[in-house]
Amino acid sequence: MLYNVQVKVMPLKDLLDPQGKAVQNGLSSLGLSNVKDVRIGKHITLQIEAPNEDAAKTAADEAGKKLLANPVMEYYEIELVN
Amino acid sequence: MLYNVQVKVMPLKDLLDPQGKAVQNGLSSLGLSNVKDVRIGKHITLQIEAPNEDAAKTAADEAGKKLLANPVMEYYEIELVN
Repeated sequence: MLYNVQVKVMPLKDLLDPQGKAVQNGLSSLGLSNVKDVRIGKHITLQIEAPNEDAAKTAADEAGKKLLANPVMEYYEIELVN
Repeated sequence: MLYNVQVKVMPLKDLLDPQGKAVQNGLSSLGLSNVKDVRIGKHITLQIEAPNEDAAKTAADEAGKKLLANPVMEYYEIELVN
């Protein structure tokens, strides 16, 4: 079966996110000064062929570890969607 | 109050996603050939100071329209988190 797995890769909470800061300043210039913090990461959707949900999650976890996230700077979260 | 709004910005479904295709090939080389499709977008978390949920969503929507997404190539989805 084909499973749709969403992987969210974000900069670690303790790290500065200069891209997010730049976007925050941009939003402020556009009149959206009520946006107090911005952090930017990646959103990855995977279509995984697997026999069951657990196998799909395991494959997504392996993908996150091996390629999608750099653990020095990022963490990732996996979510299975119907 | 401070609201945590998650914005997902993804390439339009009808468009090719070369970055996703490259990652799919990379995963395949790493032995994850059961990943059949990969699409990569941005995940943005906004901390918005607003009087209520609706105002926070409206501000996030404005941010999406004005700066976060390029409507020619991308669509965005907004989700309010507790």
